Amino acid sequence: MSLPAVSLLVCGTVVTMDDHRALIENGAVAVAGNTICEIGARDRLVGNYPEARILEVGRGLVMPGLVNVHTHAAMALLRGLADDLPLMTWLHEHIFPVESRLSAELVYQGSLLSAMEMIKGGTTSFCDMYLFAKDVARAAEKSGLRAWVGEVLYDFPSPNYGALPQGLIYVDEMFARYENHPRVTVTVDPHAIYTCSPDLLVRLKEKALDRGSRYVIHLSETEGEVRNARAQFGKSPVHHLEALGLLDSSVIAAHCVALTSEEIALLAERGVKIGHCPESNMKLASGVAPLGAMRAARLDIGLGTDGAASNNDVDMFAEMDMAAKLQKVTNLDPMVLPAAQVLEMATRGGARVLGAEQLIGSLEVGKRADMIVIDLDKPHLTPLYDIPAHLVYAVRATDVVHSVIDGRIVMENRQLLTLDEEAVLAHCRQLAGELTGRTC
Amino acid sequence: MSLPAVSLLVCGTVVTMDDHRALIENGAVAVAGNTICEIGARDRLVGNYPEARILEVGRGLVMPGLVNVHTHAAMALLRGLADDLPLMTWLHEHIFPVESRLSAELVYQGSLLSAMEMIKGGTTSFCDMYLFAKDVARAAEKSGLRAWVGEVLYDFPSPNYGALPQGLIYVDEMFARYENHPRVTVTVDPHAIYTCSPDLLVRLKEKALDRGSRYVIHLSETEGEVRNARAQFGKSPVHHLEALGLLDSSVIAAHCVALTSEEIALLAERGVKIGHCPESNMKLASGVAPLGAMRAARLDIGLGTDGAASNNDVDMFAEMDMAAKLQKVTNLDPMVLPAAQVLEMATRGGARVLGAEQLIGSLEVGKRADMIVIDLDKPHLTPLYDIPAHLVYAVRATDVVHSVIDGRIVMENRQLLTLDEEAVLAHCRQLAGELTGRTC
Repeated sequence: MSLPAVSLLVCGTVVTMDDHRALIENGAVAVAGNTICEIGARDRLVGNYPEARILEVGRGLVMPGLVNVHTHAAMALLRGLADDLPLMTWLHEHIFPVESRLSAELVYQGSLLSAMEMIKGGTTSFCDMYLFAKDVARAAEKSGLRAWVGEVLYDFPSPNYGALPQGLIYVDEMFARYENHPRVTVTVDPHAIYTCSPDLLVRLKEKALDRGSRYVIHLSETEGEVRNARAQFGKSPVHHLEALGLLDSSVIAAHCVALTSEEIALLAERGVKIGHCPESNMKLASGVAPLGAMRAARLDIGLGTDGAASNNDVDMFAEMDMAAKLQKVTNLDPMVLPAAQVLEMATRGGARVLGAEQLIGSLEVGKRADMIVIDLDKPHLTPLYDIPAHLVYAVRATDVVHSVIDGRIVMENRQLLTLDEEAVLAHCRQLAGELTGRTC
Repeated sequence: MSLPAVSLLVCGTVVTMDDHRALIENGAVAVAGNTICEIGARDRLVGNYPEARILEVGRGLVMPGLVNVHTHAAMALLRGLADDLPLMTWLHEHIFPVESRLSAELVYQGSLLSAMEMIKGGTTSFCDMYLFAKDVARAAEKSGLRAWVGEVLYDFPSPNYGALPQGLIYVDEMFARYENHPRVTVTVDPHAIYTCSPDLLVRLKEKALDRGSRYVIHLSETEGEVRNARAQFGKSPVHHLEALGLLDSSVIAAHCVALTSEEIALLAERGVKIGHCPESNMKLASGVAPLGAMRAARLDIGLGTDGAASNNDVDMFAEMDMAAKLQKVTNLDPMVLPAAQVLEMATRGGARVLGAEQLIGSLEVGKRADMIVIDLDKPHLTPLYDIPAHLVYAVRATDVVHSVIDGRIVMENRQLLTLDEEAVLAHCRQLAGELTGRTC
């Protein structure tokens, strides 16, 4: 089999995030089709592939695209609708009433809105749980993002599919549509143990096993969830899933704020993957996930923004900064979660959580060409002593100038090539106004 | 006395931050000289002042410039030099050795570097404590920023002035130079109770009283500082200052992390002003300031970034976001410190801390024309339901497009009009390399 020719060279200081954390100054990443086929010195690669297009910027840094392991992209439409409220008031009085009026078009446009923000902020992969997931997937296809997409499932009727049996059909249709898709992967997403009966949790696990897919669930987000689970089931949320035989390496457990040491050990033994969402946990006052203990237990941990309604953005650079600082102050130890570990969580860690470590998360030959170029020629990035520290504590979403996903340039010089930014913004303003009755 | 003519109209949705928190859609702020002379409907003001220059942007929001009440601007040169280390290791093994080699030129260029970042991030006023403060002030003059500047004073010899008597002369020279300066105000800055003898603290208070200036000091930054003070003086840092008769309304106490309820009441009774620096407190793992109790005691609180070496930026929008979220998660209450309160802390609160509430902190007739224009036409700011929530949780430094300080346009369409950005960056890279022996 002959490989496609090298069509693209992405050049700059290359932060590979490979096993050796190799860093290549004046480097280049060569792309053939959707795959990285060579990494090396810029001058040599430019000489070897004179026909290839060069993507770079003056003082540029090339790194793996960021992996957002937990979001609800379409909630960008609800950003700032209701803030500084208790979780249940926020959900029941503000979010759920609006969500009951959602439509496929709203979710599609809201997901495009988040997609634009994600690409412009250096994210190249996201894992999404929401209603009208076919339309989330459609937005991912359109935007060029790599996506793991699941329809949120629970016992009560859904504004999307109606009764549960239709929901299961909807999910099967998604699996059929995206079988072998290069960028979109379908997941099975029970909302939480407090919205899904044990029977539903078990049935969905069977579907996930049958499809070989990830099983995404909100888990132990707050102490309140734990208390309620104990009252209802006599068990914590983690032990509830364990008793049902549902904990295994296909599970992505989002949040995991309220965990005991024993539960952390159990999750690690079962190979459960963690979606850590510090900004949402802070804003909703859910608590601080025990990241140190989770890391010590060698759990795979990725970073997620959660939806923009509880963050209020899907900015993974801000999330890295917040993640590091929150752990330091909570543990009263500045050495906890150093920058390099946070950077790993947002790249390789996320890839492992998604079961995609062979495809993404680092820049290595044979992996998919998902990468971003950062412009370091900025006041807030000068001088440069330490790259991980800059990436976690100083780089902003807006410093990302180019983005390549699956070998395709999706943003160049901060211009989106896959989406008409002004049109999406105008459409979203109109839809948000109709949805909420407010001027937006 | 005839007033200068209206030369400038800054137009957009005006967030006045006045006593009524008035918001004017399609509004304009009219500037005559360095002063706001009228605020009202855009159409009317444009009609009334046809000669005035108009500064605006498509979906623009006009608000008071942000007030950073505690920073060490020149430490931008040390950004990322040493991270994720214990405070004393960081200070003694990394920061102090480098600072011992500082020079007037390094401080001037480092301060210009921070000034560029501050202006580009919406800050119009900053309060700085550092070595070679004359050069910090010189950078403030050059940049167009409004500044409160103090030379850091302590018992041991300074890399700037040498022995203490020269330091006192240096401060007097600063007062002489900046008497009645429209933008630069000199402060008296004892470093901390652990670096200044009681005698020095008292002498400096006399100087501050004599000059009618602010007295800026790091106070109760960590529990360790409190423990050491108890061991050395038999008193906490707050009570040490109280026993010396030094607590009054001219004091700006930076950090104030480790305070008892009784100390908070005492600080409030004495009218002490607070410089709250959450990101630095998080990154250095100093702890979480008891903001709720401080607010309940009606203390005046401003927001500060601290230096870029412990943050690692001087971004007041990020600081607002972090401040709000940190309080919520620490108190496990999402209603704590809502967006509007954080916004006040970064504007009017900061002005009160600096004793400048008659001049800055809100857009009102008679106040200085210090304001910024934010471009809301962005994916991460669409839709718009609630302005304070957007400003605290979603707006980024890079959304600031224009900045006016003291009636002068210092940034237009993100281009700095007072400084040559490329030249300062190149100079800072070279100086940082010489200072640290690294390639920057």
